Amino acid sequence: MKGFCWPARVYWEDTDGGGIVYYANYLRFLERARTEWLRSLGYSQNALARDPGIVFTVVSLSVDYRKPARLDDELVITCEATAEGVVTIRFAQRIYRKEPGATPVPGHDGPAVVDEPSGDADRARLLVEADVRVACVDAATLRPKRLPDFLAGAVALAGAIVNG
Amino acid sequence: MKGFCWPARVYWEDTDGGGIVYYANYLRFLERARTEWLRSLGYSQNALARDPGIVFTVVSLSVDYRKPARLDDELVITCEATAEGVVTIRFAQRIYRKEPGATPVPGHDGPAVVDEPSGDADRARLLVEADVRVACVDAATLRPKRLPDFLAGAVALAGAIVNG
Amino acid sequence: MKGFCWPARVYWEDTDGGGIVYYANYLRFLERARTEWLRSLGYSQNALARDPGIVFTVVSLSVDYRKPARLDDELVITCEATAEGVVTIRFAQRIYRKEPGATPVPGHDGPAVVDEPSGDADRARLLVEADVRVACVDAATLRPKRLPDFLAGAVALAGAIVNG
Amino acid sequence: MKGFCWPARVYWEDTDGGGIVYYANYLRFLERARTEWLRSLGYSQNALARDPGIVFTVVSLSVDYRKPARLDDELVITCEATAEGVVTIRFAQRIYRKEPGATPVPGHDGPAVVDEPSGDADRARLLVEADVRVACVDAATLRPKRLPDFLAGAVALAGAIVNG
Repeated sequence: MKGFCWPARVYWEDTDGGGIVYYANYLRFLERARTEWLRSLGYSQNALARDPGIVFTVVSLSVDYRKPARLDDELVITCEATAEGVVTIRFAQRIYRKEPGATPVPGHDGPAVVDEPSGDADRARLLVEADVRVACVDAATLRPKRLPDFLAGAVALAGAIVNG
Repeated sequence: MKGFCWPARVYWEDTDGGGIVYYANYLRFLERARTEWLRSLGYSQNALARDPGIVFTVVSLSVDYRKPARLDDELVITCEATAEGVVTIRFAQRIYRKEPGATPVPGHDGPAVVDEPSGDADRARLLVEADVRVACVDAATLRPKRLPDFLAGAVALAGAIVNG
Repeated sequence: MKGFCWPARVYWEDTDGGGIVYYANYLRFLERARTEWLRSLGYSQNALARDPGIVFTVVSLSVDYRKPARLDDELVITCEATAEGVVTIRFAQRIYRKEPGATPVPGHDGPAVVDEPSGDADRARLLVEADVRVACVDAATLRPKRLPDFLAGAVALAGAIVNG
Repeated sequence: MKGFCWPARVYWEDTDGGGIVYYANYLRFLERARTEWLRSLGYSQNALARDPGIVFTVVSLSVDYRKPARLDDELVITCEATAEGVVTIRFAQRIYRKEPGATPVPGHDGPAVVDEPSGDADRARLLVEADVRVACVDAATLRPKRLPDFLAGAVALAGAIVNG
């Protein structure tokens, strides 16, 4: 797995009467990973809302639900950001289930998950794929606002590391 | 059933992997009923937040879970308010399940549910009992603020109607 | 507005710290409308899970968030279904905000909302557009299962009415 | 802080339009801590539901909301269990906000939070106090079922360690 990833556990609150995670609740996992990705770059959303007065709002998304997550599952959510124009960040995200006995990826200190496995058993681990477009907006007016340079730079740099 | 009541349907979003409504989600039903009770008195929380600049915050609650609600159940949530001091409103609330064939209460235009039934079958209808204390606070500072007279009066009047 | 529509109110539970509806919670509104569309055809999901033993699971979706919904907003969610193969139903869904003074659509007994308005002010009413693909699966195994004839027929009929 | 504790971060999903955590969502934090407490004893709820066929259901609770939690807050949730009869476990739980510069409690390897602080600034850390009664029920019938010996023993032992 390349890039940033963040762990999450499935609790009762996440499941529905079908015994699996409710389809809207995967979006909460995706958001946690984006928030923690931003924090890993040194930015808290609370601080950005105060100075320079920006918040982020999801403008569109698409999600493929491949396999359901269940109670007690340990998930890993990935997050790859690319700038799209001067206002929008596009996140390619995936949700994996950690399998017992999975081996860590060399050179990666995140949770132990293998991204592009060779066997069928491994492919079962990818649960959800998502593409999320997030706009930078003014915290007061909610109108689109140019990404601050430090953030645009961090996104570009993150992309370069992932793809480099 | 005396006093105000509000209907709700149980959807997938409300249930958990046990096949019943998740225990925290009954609190959402309770809040909807309180909000609609306030609206029935002519007050929207949005408007009150702007003028006179107040919002309501739950300071304590207790809940008895008697019977579980399930997917597709039609619920009725009741709401009886009494003032407690000059800042706090205390809500006695109940959640009932509408049963097929229930007859409307004479003189009551809310959903058809019987409150104090005589037989065992009827008692099954009461699912949840709750006692919720809500404080009036300043919308900006979140500090306690005296209930405005029009609201204290409305609460007193509602109590008089229920108990009169 | 053509086809089925279902109302919803925005409560505190739906909003987030940005003062608008949390992006995942629109998916709850979408699901309620799909469930009620199915109920309007005479089918409850509880009953279908018992006989013929099927449930529905979202396999993919895409959402465009155009305008935010806020506390106390009255929403209307639409739902147009078409069969896609023998297992999948595709729902084109929209979430509108009811505006004060909106006039009912002639020949439509749903909430008063105008679908394809001519002026700019009216266009603001469309908040969210979504495309949701739902698969029929076996209630026990969660494996894909052919849509029962009565349901495939109802979907085809609903489409014919909408487009006829 | 005595006994078991579990960390949680506040995300957008947890907040409401008032800018603070929605009152029902604290119950999700409380449940996570109870689930992790059980896991720390060696029991997953999934496994217990299969063998010996038990699940846990909340029968009553009371909550005092003292201070609000906000976006990005780091919380610590505590959990002290005592058996009440042969079916029910009673949990005394607290939610604290981790403050910058808090020092770890000696002999405690959980998050760094001080329970009974001497100064006013410290008292602000306690956000929520809760008392939650959970019944052991049969996974299939949801009827009350005697706590299995290994669990009753573990609860008694946990209490002895905390109070010893």
